[in-house]
Amino acid sequence: MSDAAETAATGAPTIGVFDSGFGGLTVLRALVERLPDAGFAFLGDTARLPYGSKSRRTIARYAAESAQFLVREQGAEFLVIACNTASALALDAIQDAVSVPVLGVIEPGAAAAKAASRTGDVLVIATDATVQSQAYSAACRAQELQAHEKACPLLVPLVEEGWTDHPVTAEVIRIYLDELTREANARGMSPDTLVLGCTHYPLLRPVIERAVPVGVRVIDSAEAVAEAAVRLFGESVAQPSAHALPPAAQVRCFATDSVEKFERLGSRFLRRPVGKVELVDLGG
Amino acid sequence: MSDAAETAATGAPTIGVFDSGFGGLTVLRALVERLPDAGFAFLGDTARLPYGSKSRRTIARYAAESAQFLVREQGAEFLVIACNTASALALDAIQDAVSVPVLGVIEPGAAAAKAASRTGDVLVIATDATVQSQAYSAACRAQELQAHEKACPLLVPLVEEGWTDHPVTAEVIRIYLDELTREANARGMSPDTLVLGCTHYPLLRPVIERAVPVGVRVIDSAEAVAEAAVRLFGESVAQPSAHALPPAAQVRCFATDSVEKFERLGSRFLRRPVGKVELVDLGG
Repeated sequence: MSDAAETAATGAPTIGVFDSGFGGLTVLRALVERLPDAGFAFLGDTARLPYGSKSRRTIARYAAESAQFLVREQGAEFLVIACNTASALALDAIQDAVSVPVLGVIEPGAAAAKAASRTGDVLVIATDATVQSQAYSAACRAQELQAHEKACPLLVPLVEEGWTDHPVTAEVIRIYLDELTREANARGMSPDTLVLGCTHYPLLRPVIERAVPVGVRVIDSAEAVAEAAVRLFGESVAQPSAHALPPAAQVRCFATDSVEKFERLGSRFLRRPVGKVELVDLGG
Repeated sequence: MSDAAETAATGAPTIGVFDSGFGGLTVLRALVERLPDAGFAFLGDTARLPYGSKSRRTIARYAAESAQFLVREQGAEFLVIACNTASALALDAIQDAVSVPVLGVIEPGAAAAKAASRTGDVLVIATDATVQSQAYSAACRAQELQAHEKACPLLVPLVEEGWTDHPVTAEVIRIYLDELTREANARGMSPDTLVLGCTHYPLLRPVIERAVPVGVRVIDSAEAVAEAAVRLFGESVAQPSAHALPPAAQVRCFATDSVEKFERLGSRFLRRPVGKVELVDLGG
């Protein structure tokens, strides 16, 4: 019996958290804060990242293989897809590939925007593939919101370079948000909410908060999906106790490549050491 | 018989050109200018890019599979590895995988630096994986040069965003070159040559030329490898005729994914339309 299955046998189910890289550790962080007594298995498919520049067909295959690893090998009883691109392009493929409940990051982000917005007009920044999928626009429409989306492909590299509080990053964000706001205004929109539609972006939240127009609220999809996970899985998992962070042993991290980079950068996202990252081969 | 094999049968050999993405089209451009009567088959392994963040073992496997496609499926009689990361980490693996002559991009870059430098001190900018491999340092040592290398991970995304002549890009390059020069000076070096050790960087050459200290010459490894190819393969291939560019039919482009992005961005690198890019599946 695997460690994860043992955890499950003692009453604390394992939640599988999946991302193409390690940006999804911002979602894992939000999850462990809210469900400190659950077990977590995080897989970063780092050998095949970034998903953002790949086709729907390729992303669906990669994501399904990764989800099967978490369920079959790690005994995950719930899956959180902590990757906007995979949520946008492969949620159906993942749900077809495994038999456990699967939660993507897009719909919780749109629901949080619904709760925050008074005008009903929402801005979304994300990777190129997420924007091209128009998944946020569709999820916002289902919430009776109108969304205007923009791809911001420089933000992930800036985070990974460690320039999270750097004048160049502030200038790039200013340029992107100016273009985004101008485009939305040209459509006659009055946006009052900005959704961070990429799991890397929470690390830029302070810079983004300073750059958004007055009156625009910033919604973090990592926080939103964690809230949704508590609502969906909370009854099966013990609720937060007095301690804020669980013992590190409850989180196991796996990567398909770049374990060293994962360990080095991952702690920035998780805000604590990621510990020993285990290498897995998904045959890619 | 394949088109490529037919070309070979009529006396114009096919040169296979390989990159993890489409940056290597800057090398292809330099090659077709010098060998306009050769046939070219270019493969961008776009489904598995970027190689720069992956391990040596993974890169070697991907590069060997890509080289075998060009030789076995496209009849390439020579291979040019138009990817610094693959040249740095997988040249041996590629040479083991195929039986045709293989030319990487690192040694020609170092040889061109040798021809340009009077002080013997050379700066190299490249991706993280290329720098970590220290392949340029080793190739420079073999030329009795001392190299100081720096990873510039933001430059590829800036090129792909199309910000090749943008104030943000100029500022990022200024920051990187300042750090690089300071580090080299701290080692007691007097660099007079800068090697562009990534096939994306030739698109930034005008901005880089403006940012380098006075007296520092910029060496483009794409140009250097094309010169080396003429020396190595030139006798087998007809030399340049009066026309500057060959008919487009002599170049066939293949990609493992993202054909649309390849077609859209590739023409910037090749400086002419890349035409119809053919999708191939290497099983990755």
